[in-house]
Amino acid sequence: MKSHGAKRLKLGMSMRGLGYHPAAWRHPAVPADGTLRFDHYLRVAKAAERGKLDMIFFADGLGIRESDMPRGARVRSGYELVELEPMTLLPALAPLTRHIGLVATASTSYNEPFHIARKFASLDIISGGRAGWNVVTSWSTAEAQNFNRDQHYDYETRYDRAKDFVDVVEGLWDSWESDALLYDRKSGHFYDEAKMHVLAHASRHFKVRGPLNVAATPQGRPIIIQAGAAGQGRELAAAHADVIYAGQNTLAEAREFYDDVKARLPGYGRKPDDLKIMPGLRPIVAPTRAEAQAKFDALQDLLDPLVCLSRAYNVLGDLSDFDPDGPVPEPKNAPRMKSFVDRLVQVARERKLSIREFGRYVAGEGGGGHCIIGTAADVADTMQEWFEAGACDGFNITPNQLPGGCEDFVDMVVPELQRRGLFRREYEGTTLRDNLGLKPHVNRYAAARVREGA
Amino acid sequence: MKSHGAKRLKLGMSMRGLGYHPAAWRHPAVPADGTLRFDHYLRVAKAAERGKLDMIFFADGLGIRESDMPRGARVRSGYELVELEPMTLLPALAPLTRHIGLVATASTSYNEPFHIARKFASLDIISGGRAGWNVVTSWSTAEAQNFNRDQHYDYETRYDRAKDFVDVVEGLWDSWESDALLYDRKSGHFYDEAKMHVLAHASRHFKVRGPLNVAATPQGRPIIIQAGAAGQGRELAAAHADVIYAGQNTLAEAREFYDDVKARLPGYGRKPDDLKIMPGLRPIVAPTRAEAQAKFDALQDLLDPLVCLSRAYNVLGDLSDFDPDGPVPEPKNAPRMKSFVDRLVQVARERKLSIREFGRYVAGEGGGGHCIIGTAADVADTMQEWFEAGACDGFNITPNQLPGGCEDFVDMVVPELQRRGLFRREYEGTTLRDNLGLKPHVNRYAAARVREGA
Repeated sequence: MKSHGAKRLKLGMSMRGLGYHPAAWRHPAVPADGTLRFDHYLRVAKAAERGKLDMIFFADGLGIRESDMPRGARVRSGYELVELEPMTLLPALAPLTRHIGLVATASTSYNEPFHIARKFASLDIISGGRAGWNVVTSWSTAEAQNFNRDQHYDYETRYDRAKDFVDVVEGLWDSWESDALLYDRKSGHFYDEAKMHVLAHASRHFKVRGPLNVAATPQGRPIIIQAGAAGQGRELAAAHADVIYAGQNTLAEAREFYDDVKARLPGYGRKPDDLKIMPGLRPIVAPTRAEAQAKFDALQDLLDPLVCLSRAYNVLGDLSDFDPDGPVPEPKNAPRMKSFVDRLVQVARERKLSIREFGRYVAGEGGGGHCIIGTAADVADTMQEWFEAGACDGFNITPNQLPGGCEDFVDMVVPELQRRGLFRREYEGTTLRDNLGLKPHVNRYAAARVREGA
Repeated sequence: MKSHGAKRLKLGMSMRGLGYHPAAWRHPAVPADGTLRFDHYLRVAKAAERGKLDMIFFADGLGIRESDMPRGARVRSGYELVELEPMTLLPALAPLTRHIGLVATASTSYNEPFHIARKFASLDIISGGRAGWNVVTSWSTAEAQNFNRDQHYDYETRYDRAKDFVDVVEGLWDSWESDALLYDRKSGHFYDEAKMHVLAHASRHFKVRGPLNVAATPQGRPIIIQAGAAGQGRELAAAHADVIYAGQNTLAEAREFYDDVKARLPGYGRKPDDLKIMPGLRPIVAPTRAEAQAKFDALQDLLDPLVCLSRAYNVLGDLSDFDPDGPVPEPKNAPRMKSFVDRLVQVARERKLSIREFGRYVAGEGGGGHCIIGTAADVADTMQEWFEAGACDGFNITPNQLPGGCEDFVDMVVPELQRRGLFRREYEGTTLRDNLGLKPHVNRYAAARVREGA
């Protein structure tokens, strides 16, 4: 890849289910049965590609979290309930799209590295170099109970296993050097033995011999993404990730995170540009601010009170011992990441929200991704401000509702970003790696051969 | 589904890699790099659908078996080496095909039932009811070593785990009754709580709570296929399978197998027609017998002697202590299924084959699937004979080379079968289950409610 000219934003579209608002399914412009419909996902993917976005992204969970909900709430929520499995869905989208990156979450706690290496490598080949793996460790009891466990792994074990897991997957992806396959019909040599490598990994969590039964892929290897990144996650990301989906909701926090993570890269022999940081962003956009606000309010008005309460439980754990009209209690054994919980509780304090009101806030603007309600210029202003202040390399859009939230962004905000020179008008390359402006992957064994002067 | 008129053959096309002949990659009409090319698989799938076949099928292995090969053989063989992972490939084929069933192998030894239930259910939805799971237990050391083990599970454990595994998957597929999802925007009820079910499975091998986070699928649940079926496999198949890919190579053996398995069905409350038995068939077909023989000989002439030897090792284990030009020794610790090994060794005795010649025989006509070299009428004669003799419900075609082996069958044999009234001219239904003539799946909880008169 040649230079891309001025530095530009990287953009992803998070397209789990019907969007991130738990009442989305009740909105007349949203297909209520969309989480089980291929055409729903295809429409969103095509819109994102029309907007020249870098990638679509599927968050995922390995079960239905229902145990910590108020009684009756689950049947009123279509959120993260039934949906198509992302690594089955993405290959189906691959031949019907041409440019957009295809990213799925896969858990290191309840998978085997050989399967993950193989599936993402296969997706990378099928899509012509557009696969990305979002590495997560899984934190919920509901998921553990679908995989032979009563409780999920503790924090230390989860990250220790994740580190080993990523090591194995990266090792397997290097099993075959890019020129290992000869296909020499005449001599009868299918491959060059010196360029196929046995990993023979053995660590605390995994013993995996290899080689992988998929060869080098168009991107050299799929892109690695990490979400969240608190504590040990920052080190894991600095060591391995090409992209971080960051969770900071204010400019100050985002800058602190950006500087902290980028400063860790040299410790792993990496340069600041080798890792792209993309905070979540939830734009509700319309031609006027009033229309944007009305759009947001319409969704909030569809919220079921029980579903709001379950959103509060989701952040703070079981609250059935508390008066739902009383103040938000101190977080105790909250199931979610501390920084996420603390930020939300701080808002509850500032705004003096009851538990009910807190649930409504979390379901709405507080749930994930910095929320902006306004015009395309308003959204672009914030994006430009964050980008130019060194708080991010781009954004991961987490729309309230689909397909509308994606189509609005593509039709209104993208042209505004393009006018400002902040975003591409055409894809720069053929692979996700090219478009993200990441350097080519170098196979470890090929690199060693170069170092040894062989 | 209405009656299909006269009873007709069911036909599958096994399309792993470049075909079942280990020299296929050296043939000028075969893309040597096809196992990593989506367009190769797409071409074969479209040909099979043009021929109105019931399904395409991908065998699979979770590693590269190289340890029991003669030195130098592996680099000369492109067979089962690098390839696209089937459950990543099949979803990509789904939106580009309309009728053909999509079947992949997945191992019960190195997977988790929650993942398998979820992925096949998702594929069933994406494909509009065309997914099938071929249940295998995995028997090779190479696979074990990619999944934290030094050796594969012993036979008893493998089948015990397989039985539990299938129980869990079937249970998870019943998590949601077909009318469980209400999507009632007005009342705010997404689903009917009485029709979502927690499995709470706990057995020797698995503890899986559920429910599955995918709802009922177009086929009610995906089709279950079992391959081989010796010993315990026959019971597993009689209890669970919709289809068996059988391995018998003679009419007498096939009839014995057919009668034996069908007789086991009533023990599981099933009828003979609830399970379709499809032996493998490897037709080499051309307008004349001489041309067909020449087609076969051309492939045999491309066989590398070392690759032939490795095919002998594959059947009998390491033979490096024996003279390759001497007779085939008695099988001792042979890695493959006893009936498979015994049949091949019997041929070696009858034809007085040396180890080298035996390898060439296994690589060619002996390797799997009854081999017929001849005209379309010759192939159809055998198929008709087996079918009318009660030896099968159809066949699983295991072509020597792809795409040619599939295209030849579709262009020459299928019209002959259609002329004889033995095969469909149009698909009968929209799902694989419809086309196979299997009865609708009944959700276990819905059935219980009917029984209880609720």
